[in-house]
Amino acid sequence: MAKPRIGVIGGAKCTPEVAKLAEGVGRGIAERGGILLCGGLGGVMEAACRGAKSADGFTVGILPGGSAQKANPWVDLPIVTNLGEARNIIIVRSSQVLIALPGEYGTLSELSFALKLGLPVVGLSTWDISPLIHKVETWREAVDLAFRLAQGVQ
Amino acid sequence: MAKPRIGVIGGAKCTPEVAKLAEGVGRGIAERGGILLCGGLGGVMEAACRGAKSADGFTVGILPGGSAQKANPWVDLPIVTNLGEARNIIIVRSSQVLIALPGEYGTLSELSFALKLGLPVVGLSTWDISPLIHKVETWREAVDLAFRLAQGVQ
Amino acid sequence: MAKPRIGVIGGAKCTPEVAKLAEGVGRGIAERGGILLCGGLGGVMEAACRGAKSADGFTVGILPGGSAQKANPWVDLPIVTNLGEARNIIIVRSSQVLIALPGEYGTLSELSFALKLGLPVVGLSTWDISPLIHKVETWREAVDLAFRLAQGVQ
Amino acid sequence: MAKPRIGVIGGAKCTPEVAKLAEGVGRGIAERGGILLCGGLGGVMEAACRGAKSADGFTVGILPGGSAQKANPWVDLPIVTNLGEARNIIIVRSSQVLIALPGEYGTLSELSFALKLGLPVVGLSTWDISPLIHKVETWREAVDLAFRLAQGVQ
Repeated sequence: MAKPRIGVIGGAKCTPEVAKLAEGVGRGIAERGGILLCGGLGGVMEAACRGAKSADGFTVGILPGGSAQKANPWVDLPIVTNLGEARNIIIVRSSQVLIALPGEYGTLSELSFALKLGLPVVGLSTWDISPLIHKVETWREAVDLAFRLAQGVQ
Repeated sequence: MAKPRIGVIGGAKCTPEVAKLAEGVGRGIAERGGILLCGGLGGVMEAACRGAKSADGFTVGILPGGSAQKANPWVDLPIVTNLGEARNIIIVRSSQVLIALPGEYGTLSELSFALKLGLPVVGLSTWDISPLIHKVETWREAVDLAFRLAQGVQ
Repeated sequence: MAKPRIGVIGGAKCTPEVAKLAEGVGRGIAERGGILLCGGLGGVMEAACRGAKSADGFTVGILPGGSAQKANPWVDLPIVTNLGEARNIIIVRSSQVLIALPGEYGTLSELSFALKLGLPVVGLSTWDISPLIHKVETWREAVDLAFRLAQGVQ
Repeated sequence: MAKPRIGVIGGAKCTPEVAKLAEGVGRGIAERGGILLCGGLGGVMEAACRGAKSADGFTVGILPGGSAQKANPWVDLPIVTNLGEARNIIIVRSSQVLIALPGEYGTLSELSFALKLGLPVVGLSTWDISPLIHKVETWREAVDLAFRLAQGVQ
């Protein structure tokens, strides 16, 4: 059976507290056998990938630039788009569920696309733009809920 | 000298009141000699194009689909991307300033990209996600301000 | 009635002879009332735009980068994609017919997409990859044939 | 250490002979520990993925459409681009080397991008557009050479 594809979105820079949250999210995804998809850069993305690798998970970085070398060191599979911000949509569409952490306008664009497409979103202290975002408080809750929500998505 | 490129964003469906606003915006852009860029579909986009054509303006529809025939009838130049929502970013990047009317998550994604890129945005009853959006109340104010803001942008 | 949209493709660098061909093509498109679409950069693209402006035409440059300033000086409307080579497909899809001049692998990719999509192509000393490419010898023949072929395309 | 990323390109429909070649290529990639990237659809892509799964490999399908369900049944990780033919460039850019089998104009566009970007290409009875394509006659040779060529690529 195919492994659940869990997208993690959030800022390319983040505080140590947010990095810790993201690392927990990544580890949780890996422990449950999911594939972690993200934008492949720093901040939330790097912390989540590092967490996933600490539990022997598999990480995918869908990169905005034209070089695989720009991926953070915890990315197993770089997808090199060279599409700039347009790669945000590919992260959303390739995921069965998103876990959204704090981020700026790039994260907001990803939330917008997810809501437009009807993709389930779990929010951890992220943009509050819709009651459809499932708000949670801990990374454990985020991961638990994300895997439940992913079950209905193809 | 190159004509100012003014992007108009908003919902693919809209109320008659919003359509009237959008039509005024389009007419105002044309009267001042700007090129109107939009997503080329219905609702706010169609009303704005219709307004621009009523003043003999030039309209560009940057389409999500793969066929020029999906453009609304007031589009002079269809740009056929076949990129789905990724075309939203092209609308933002190709404009020197955006006028944002009411819309849903697609419009929100465009606002997100504009703010990320530092593009000036004039807001007419649109998403309130940043103090950087210049809020105005009438289409005349929107057009006046948009042309002033476009001057500094290349 | 909408103006015919004629795409011109070819190398970003070219010999003076090819530039002269391209300039003729651009001028011919403008004289017949077409809109010239191209990739907006140098070489064949720049020469074609220059030719079109010499006859008061309208030129569109669909740019691979993220800045309108990278367009050649004869582009009236820069479409700023920031998609790299993926913008090649937008040139093809937005045109009703292509006139292909000498170019390298970027031009070959555009020819490939045009043939895949069934778009008519007029070839002026370009890649010889299909009997479907209409080969001609002069820019006048190229423009004449392109406008005839564009009539059947929407 | 990161696994080599080997792209396989070729037609969405193919003869049984070509399918057998593609299946061998896929199995060979998996046996040597590479990740197989492809366009995720039928024909050459499906046969290559099937071959990779027969040797317990990992397969990535970079899809042109908007739904993961369009991937062939042997794709482990669908990347859902909704970008149409523009996804071809992502296959090329994400691979360290390409193995090209017989295909039509989509395959030709991928070869064009690879040559433009300087990516090494191994050709198995594919388009003959450049002496830079490394021509081989068997799937074993193709896989052996591809892994050697991938070593120098980041």
